[in-house]
Amino acid sequence: MAFPRPKPTTMETLAMERANPPFNIRQLSIAMHGGEKALILKEKFMAEIARHPAFKLSDIHDLSKDELRERTMEKFASMVYFVTNESIETFQLRMQLIGIADPSFWTRFGVAYGLFLGALRSGATPNQLSYWIERGVLGLNGVIGCFAMTELAHGSNVAGLETTATFDRGSDEFIIHTPHLGATKWWIGGAASTATHAAVFAQLIIDGKRHGVKTFVTQLRDTKTFTLMPGVTIGDIGKKMGRDGIDNGYIQFTYVRVPRAHMLMKHTQVSRDGVVTEPPLAQLTYGALLGGRTSMVTDSSNSAKKALTVAVRYAAVRRQFATGKNELETQLLDYPIHQRRLMPLVAQAIAMGFTGLRLQVMYEDMTQALEAMEPSDPNLNDILDKLKETHATSAGLKAFCTWACLDTIDKCRQSCGGHGYSAYSNFPLMYADFAVQCTWEGDNTILSLQAGRSLVGAWGAAIKGKKLAPGVAYLNDASTRTAKSDSSLSLDDIQKAWNCVAFNVIKKAAEEYVKLLKSGKSKDEAMERCSQSRFIAAKIHTIGYIFRLFTEAVQEMPDNEESKVLKTVASLYGLWQIEEQQGYFLKYGYYNAEQIDKVQESVDALCAEVRGVAIPLIDSFALSDHIINSPLGKWDGSVYESYFAQVQAANPLPKEHPYFTRLIKPLLERQNEDMEDPGTAMGLEDELKEIEEERKGE
Amino acid sequence: MAFPRPKPTTMETLAMERANPPFNIRQLSIAMHGGEKALILKEKFMAEIARHPAFKLSDIHDLSKDELRERTMEKFASMVYFVTNESIETFQLRMQLIGIADPSFWTRFGVAYGLFLGALRSGATPNQLSYWIERGVLGLNGVIGCFAMTELAHGSNVAGLETTATFDRGSDEFIIHTPHLGATKWWIGGAASTATHAAVFAQLIIDGKRHGVKTFVTQLRDTKTFTLMPGVTIGDIGKKMGRDGIDNGYIQFTYVRVPRAHMLMKHTQVSRDGVVTEPPLAQLTYGALLGGRTSMVTDSSNSAKKALTVAVRYAAVRRQFATGKNELETQLLDYPIHQRRLMPLVAQAIAMGFTGLRLQVMYEDMTQALEAMEPSDPNLNDILDKLKETHATSAGLKAFCTWACLDTIDKCRQSCGGHGYSAYSNFPLMYADFAVQCTWEGDNTILSLQAGRSLVGAWGAAIKGKKLAPGVAYLNDASTRTAKSDSSLSLDDIQKAWNCVAFNVIKKAAEEYVKLLKSGKSKDEAMERCSQSRFIAAKIHTIGYIFRLFTEAVQEMPDNEESKVLKTVASLYGLWQIEEQQGYFLKYGYYNAEQIDKVQESVDALCAEVRGVAIPLIDSFALSDHIINSPLGKWDGSVYESYFAQVQAANPLPKEHPYFTRLIKPLLERQNEDMEDPGTAMGLEDELKEIEEERKGE
Repeated sequence: MAFPRPKPTTMETLAMERANPPFNIRQLSIAMHGGEKALILKEKFMAEIARHPAFKLSDIHDLSKDELRERTMEKFASMVYFVTNESIETFQLRMQLIGIADPSFWTRFGVAYGLFLGALRSGATPNQLSYWIERGVLGLNGVIGCFAMTELAHGSNVAGLETTATFDRGSDEFIIHTPHLGATKWWIGGAASTATHAAVFAQLIIDGKRHGVKTFVTQLRDTKTFTLMPGVTIGDIGKKMGRDGIDNGYIQFTYVRVPRAHMLMKHTQVSRDGVVTEPPLAQLTYGALLGGRTSMVTDSSNSAKKALTVAVRYAAVRRQFATGKNELETQLLDYPIHQRRLMPLVAQAIAMGFTGLRLQVMYEDMTQALEAMEPSDPNLNDILDKLKETHATSAGLKAFCTWACLDTIDKCRQSCGGHGYSAYSNFPLMYADFAVQCTWEGDNTILSLQAGRSLVGAWGAAIKGKKLAPGVAYLNDASTRTAKSDSSLSLDDIQKAWNCVAFNVIKKAAEEYVKLLKSGKSKDEAMERCSQSRFIAAKIHTIGYIFRLFTEAVQEMPDNEESKVLKTVASLYGLWQIEEQQGYFLKYGYYNAEQIDKVQESVDALCAEVRGVAIPLIDSFALSDHIINSPLGKWDGSVYESYFAQVQAANPLPKEHPYFTRLIKPLLERQNEDMEDPGTAMGLEDELKEIEEERKGE
Repeated sequence: MAFPRPKPTTMETLAMERANPPFNIRQLSIAMHGGEKALILKEKFMAEIARHPAFKLSDIHDLSKDELRERTMEKFASMVYFVTNESIETFQLRMQLIGIADPSFWTRFGVAYGLFLGALRSGATPNQLSYWIERGVLGLNGVIGCFAMTELAHGSNVAGLETTATFDRGSDEFIIHTPHLGATKWWIGGAASTATHAAVFAQLIIDGKRHGVKTFVTQLRDTKTFTLMPGVTIGDIGKKMGRDGIDNGYIQFTYVRVPRAHMLMKHTQVSRDGVVTEPPLAQLTYGALLGGRTSMVTDSSNSAKKALTVAVRYAAVRRQFATGKNELETQLLDYPIHQRRLMPLVAQAIAMGFTGLRLQVMYEDMTQALEAMEPSDPNLNDILDKLKETHATSAGLKAFCTWACLDTIDKCRQSCGGHGYSAYSNFPLMYADFAVQCTWEGDNTILSLQAGRSLVGAWGAAIKGKKLAPGVAYLNDASTRTAKSDSSLSLDDIQKAWNCVAFNVIKKAAEEYVKLLKSGKSKDEAMERCSQSRFIAAKIHTIGYIFRLFTEAVQEMPDNEESKVLKTVASLYGLWQIEEQQGYFLKYGYYNAEQIDKVQESVDALCAEVRGVAIPLIDSFALSDHIINSPLGKWDGSVYESYFAQVQAANPLPKEHPYFTRLIKPLLERQNEDMEDPGTAMGLEDELKEIEEERKGE
């Protein structure tokens, strides 16, 4: 008797899930990508890298660190053409896609173009910038840059960096020096084996006086021979949790001389005779951070969508347990608890995606407004306020979106059971690669506190009657604080809920802060002491902010089947997060206990509703099988066949057993011998017996 | 000018943290290990493996999968002696320690001794067991076993496994067969390259009739030559998220014959003429699962303690930001938010540790009671009730403790900033190795629902007036449900809080279930539909259970400095978890909004209090530098020196650059050329422009 194979096949099951979707997948996809152009470009990029041998992804789980790094440089070579020929907008979309497909390469690429070139763009004078571009910074033909900020003993505290750049008036040079081990430049991407130059952050010292941390372009290696420059010591910092395709290294400088002109002087200038001129307006560097954070919100959404594409497709085809005798086993996706595991995360990924799109527009608008503005402009303060608010909110967004994505990846892994633990599911690498996003560009907890600090400030301004920037305008209306639910659980009601609770948690943090000040604490200490409440304020404000940007985007869409499903998704996101944070909604009385039960019921129902369209919804994320790189998430549902084929291809049987003769055979053929327990020989047994006796005596 | 090095050094800082602890570290350590004997043995085991070359740990981050696997077999050889000579109790403590030091080896070892030998112990008749022991199962001299349960398409659903074992009456053999790809044995630890025999789970079929899943010992490889037996196909399933030292493989059987005597027949018997005799009492297999889950609670505590040892020591010596000019920078551990990040996790790890100790005792007592009992014993039902309750609770404990530990590891990693992302911090491996614990021995979500199902049942029994087993006895007292806080936040008040809230969430799940039944759903469907509420019930019950077991253990200790600090730790654990789950405490009215604020204040204060003794407390975990295997957590505080030395040792510079000539030189020396954009050639640009125009027209 042969066992009947389950019917339908996994492929047929997925095809059935795709039959007659209640919306147009392509239209929904266009909305999620912020327009048709972005989607078409993404499809072009996906096709390009799927066909380029350097971007082969199916074998990366079995490559060594050294092989991955070498491949990184192959990718570099394949990309240089585009960098020098594409519009910035197109190039940014390309990088976004690379960020999802290959975070390790994205990092090395970002070091050269985001960090090193970015440092030149924001810190160099126009003459300096021309000079470096002529030397080949754009095409890497002459200069391959890296970014040497972090030190072994200093990360977040940039002002505390200890590398020194001492002006030598005699030779018109700076002397770059690493005074002790802790000041070793550390984590420097590209330093270990691929960079020729570094943008070095160091304490400017002139005549024994410190002038703060500035940037000095310092040559690391000879561009012809690649040997290290005199005084430059470089080491490889080796294996990391993920992103092993980037060669992070450490650098120690021993009295290395660079020409004065290699200090970037757009802001602070040092003259030939060592006179320092400081810039008039320091705070306009917000912009650069904002751009990075915006892209991390988008990347969080994209990476979460990648993991969810795998987990949701797998849940649709995986069957486990039959409810009756001889029946077909149930699809995991039909279990209410499995819907609970994945559907809210789908909603969250979509919410973060729309948030990223809107942030990008806000960021571009603000940049344009600032560039067009004269210092005498009467709107300057408004725009600066908005910039500050967006900057602070972006700190919270970076933190909570990267956390949400990391959490999503691991939940997706767990939802695939044992197979999620296989390297070939791609979850392990996704997690390992993404994990650093919670740390770099500012540790998430610290960034959350920065956002919280700004909210405390905003609350203070609001009670003084100041009209706040749009992102925190709800603090201007005191009635927000005592609002109650109209029990409709409509999108408007959900928004009111978040505003009410955000108002209250911000107020709590601010009042704690004021109380601490009144008790005699310094401002700094008072801020530290109320940090838990600041953290909560940032969390609630940020979730409410994501919900607002998402629903605004959806409400601006025409009233059609695509916006309809997105409204359902928005409700799920908002209500699920209320459930997650229900304590605050109860505490501040926006909902009562029965209403909270209703929230739970609604989330159950919305999960079931979104499950109904889960596969078409996931398809609208528009991620190719090559990008997903997981047989469990194959578009056509051929999960087991693809998985088995990949495992076989990646693990050919060795011709000879590598250690049978040396290790296994002697074990198998061993004769049992009587040996004395070494514990007895050491007298340990006696000691233990004594303890035993004592214990009994107690 | 040279920068002054921060004073004191990291080593001095840690020494100061250890000065004059308010309790005896060794006494506290003894309490945490359940006695002096266990601690002394642990110290012996730690010394042994620190000195054995096979257990070198500092280089494992840079070993390939194949190298790790080979080393696993070296460890095997070093351990066989102890297995055959040590008492089971000593051996179990040894395995516990190995589980913390080297999870990958622990797994391979566990497959041979826990799973394969365990299957024989629980499933073989005494004669069968003797036979296999004579063949060399204990000393591996003749038989190296593995455990072939899971299949590619079936994990959790053991009853649904599709491998067949068809009885051939003519030859008195079973024919083991894999009918299709999905029935391939998958994840089988040891199968890929080290096992000679497997305990194969397969559907017993006699005369075309299925008799359910039984176990068949099947030879995989010739013990002299290690070639595969006829009909056995084996492949390597390759890279995993972690535990790469174990050789997981897949097995396909093509009509492989095994003698009838190789079916394990302690429970079900098949006679020479194919008559099947089923066992009278099936549910007594609870015990085996219980033991595994108990050890996973302990392992969760130990693994969390390992991560926390690193994170807390690092936080004590890492300084970042000075509060005033020229002052010493502040230790991370002195920031309230950093205390918030780590101290509750320390409390949780300790709570899980005491829970594990008490579970172990309960488990042994129950096993003894069961073994000593006759079927006619009047106490049988009581003991079975208690066993059932402990079994159900252990499902929840396994789930929430392994989740808590995994979460702790990642939070510890993040708390160390960028260095946490270095492989040498050991967090990446700890996370990757531990992650599978949330999946194997039952997916955590599914186990939580099992625990929830049992709680729903207990509630039903309670309202019928049945006296419940101790773990859920609080459901017998209806006044628990409407209890209110006495505002003292004492340990007793905290326990009352958990009982009250657990009562209410269980009641909610049970009432949902009953309502669904009344609306006409089947029992199965009703259970599925209330799964979110069942999940919450399991979570709250489990946390309250851990709190109870921990406080009971502490309250039984003599009234001294050690029990005093543990009471503080217990308060922190209980109150912090109330904060985390505050919604339920507000919803069911145990606390009001002001009391919840007081809980938050108390947690802040307790974090600060525990921080005061953080280093001595961590020291009492008694984990050697070798076990920790992280320079960031070095006992003597030589963090940067050790880290730098390890990075250097692991990454010697290559004599020649591996790809400069092939990849970097051509880039650097490239001349910019004018090439046409392939996008233009493809006509894509025109298409995109059209879209652009259309958009403008809208």
